[in-house]
Amino acid sequence: MSLDISKITSPQLLLDKNICKRNIERMREKAFSKNLKLFPHFKTHQSWEVGKWCLDSGIDGIAVSSLKMAKYFAEAGGYTDITVSFPVNIREIDLINELAKKTNLTLLVNEEYSAKVLAHKLQSPVSIFIEVDSTYHRSGLGSEQTVKIEQILQSIESAAKMKFRGFYIHPGDSYHAPTIQEKAVIHNAALETLKWMKSKYGNDMTECRLGDTPNCSLMENFDGVDSIGPGNYVFYDYVQTQIGSCGVGDIAVCLATPVVSFNRNRNEVIVHGGAVHLSKDFLINEQGQKSFGLVVQIHENGWSSPISGTFVKSVSQEHGIIEMDNSLIDTLQPGDLLGILPVHSCLTADAMKQYRCLDGKIADHLEGQMSF
Amino acid sequence: MSLDISKITSPQLLLDKNICKRNIERMREKAFSKNLKLFPHFKTHQSWEVGKWCLDSGIDGIAVSSLKMAKYFAEAGGYTDITVSFPVNIREIDLINELAKKTNLTLLVNEEYSAKVLAHKLQSPVSIFIEVDSTYHRSGLGSEQTVKIEQILQSIESAAKMKFRGFYIHPGDSYHAPTIQEKAVIHNAALETLKWMKSKYGNDMTECRLGDTPNCSLMENFDGVDSIGPGNYVFYDYVQTQIGSCGVGDIAVCLATPVVSFNRNRNEVIVHGGAVHLSKDFLINEQGQKSFGLVVQIHENGWSSPISGTFVKSVSQEHGIIEMDNSLIDTLQPGDLLGILPVHSCLTADAMKQYRCLDGKIADHLEGQMSF
Repeated sequence: MSLDISKITSPQLLLDKNICKRNIERMREKAFSKNLKLFPHFKTHQSWEVGKWCLDSGIDGIAVSSLKMAKYFAEAGGYTDITVSFPVNIREIDLINELAKKTNLTLLVNEEYSAKVLAHKLQSPVSIFIEVDSTYHRSGLGSEQTVKIEQILQSIESAAKMKFRGFYIHPGDSYHAPTIQEKAVIHNAALETLKWMKSKYGNDMTECRLGDTPNCSLMENFDGVDSIGPGNYVFYDYVQTQIGSCGVGDIAVCLATPVVSFNRNRNEVIVHGGAVHLSKDFLINEQGQKSFGLVVQIHENGWSSPISGTFVKSVSQEHGIIEMDNSLIDTLQPGDLLGILPVHSCLTADAMKQYRCLDGKIADHLEGQMSF
Repeated sequence: MSLDISKITSPQLLLDKNICKRNIERMREKAFSKNLKLFPHFKTHQSWEVGKWCLDSGIDGIAVSSLKMAKYFAEAGGYTDITVSFPVNIREIDLINELAKKTNLTLLVNEEYSAKVLAHKLQSPVSIFIEVDSTYHRSGLGSEQTVKIEQILQSIESAAKMKFRGFYIHPGDSYHAPTIQEKAVIHNAALETLKWMKSKYGNDMTECRLGDTPNCSLMENFDGVDSIGPGNYVFYDYVQTQIGSCGVGDIAVCLATPVVSFNRNRNEVIVHGGAVHLSKDFLINEQGQKSFGLVVQIHENGWSSPISGTFVKSVSQEHGIIEMDNSLIDTLQPGDLLGILPVHSCLTADAMKQYRCLDGKIADHLEGQMSF
């Protein structure tokens, strides 16, 4: 079955199942070849159906970024191990207890106070990662924060319902390192930090997990790492092609947008597809221009490679403004469709909350509504 | 009734009904005093309940930015006049016909081709604005595009189901003009464009509509304007305070975010509240720093004025990183709540898709789910 383009009347996020499954399989193979356990981060797709493609490939341990997501996937069934890879929010203790009763739940604890509240209020066992930080400096504890780390470990050890699982690191600065050499510096610093933490505080059972798509895609040395938790790789996106994590043919999602108007005197196409569909993430392209996405043609089997010299130059709430040569604009009419390969697929997927697969079927999303 | 803060366990968008109603009333009074009809743009709140506060104040004509929104408010009932203030997407002809059958629908037509498709396919009468452009250069026709304008007007005139209503302009560059004088230049250019279009193509019945919150809030001269269509003013936001459209006390929405961790060595608080809650819109604050929001304290009657020297310095998918003095951090614990006044309330409201009013009740949103 192919895509019936005439049924697409408003902005929709297309999902190429073959590309997505290939991405899932490629990372699974890489993890297997390196003797790493793979816990894909489902914050990217937030979809029962995409999750099932992972389950079908033998992956039944996952990461998510909120308890709401943990609940969704716990209810979907089949997952034996769910980690909320976000510093625990103790206001959600009731939901934590509800989930811990029925699933193997792992939480991130970066504060002694949070560990103590959990120790006092947990009703079922949970496992605990401590998040560590080497060079990213978003969240997590630096290896020099020995007092804080020891206090958290003591709180965990003395609690009946908590079990220390290991150390988690997300070296997200890999996204911004301009060269592979600089990415390797970040990656190696993360490996060193994990090794140091394990040698000082852990034992053979201590799990060290690393989770960023650029370095999980690009690096070969995972010395000291037990498991990886990349998320974006299931879809990849324009940023990841710029980073070098993937090729443009590995991007599995594409926003279909209806053409509504033109400004030929400015070489612009106006589409229905803006910040509420794509998000406001942008990058600076090779020509030094701010770009909110690559532009492709949509056909019944998916989409083309990017149209040369054509890109999304700005977005407002519902408008997308595409820069395109007038010779190409002359081939378009209002009501045609153009596709946009998103800068950041995680945010586009979260904004769209639904996928249309190329066989015409809808793939579910945590908060999606079946609107067609 | 006051807000039961203990019930807020995850990021939620608080809505102060009193501030919102005051904003609604103030713009209504201004429009009335200038003899302008007010058609508030409901893309900001997308809420049946907030819409009802407008209806209650006597406003029954509105603007929206998609046919999906038009359908939602048409079904809510009470509105006598709904304009989709976005260049018509002719792929949605079936939905246009469905809505035009039961409501007074106005569309924006900027392309002759779209006018011809509508002429051919419309089953019920619709009114048509032509969008004009003076200095913003997003969408709409410049006054020099006389051939294109005349072709569209001819297509409308010769169509049985289309009635020309007038000219619409959104001078959105008012958001970026640094001084009131420069905003006035933009505003006056928009007024001149509307006047010129009306004198050349219209008559006494031709409606000229202008719709941007900064100039609708700040300007006094609306010479030649028949109606206004601002949207953001119902909530306002941090950008609008920077523009001067409102004071910080006029911001009607605040994202409640749970504190999850600290980095005292970097004067940072980590909250659960990121790009999927706030959006990625930022501004440069008075200190030259990139800011994703102002930070306030939350209490049972709403929120405080902004905490001095404290702001959201970065967001990723779920993380918000707040810069705050350690002396203030020392007063916080994980599990406390902090409030964030959003940079751009339209995008925050669209991301959150639900409001909690200060009396604890939930205000509906077009795509919201009743999750608590």
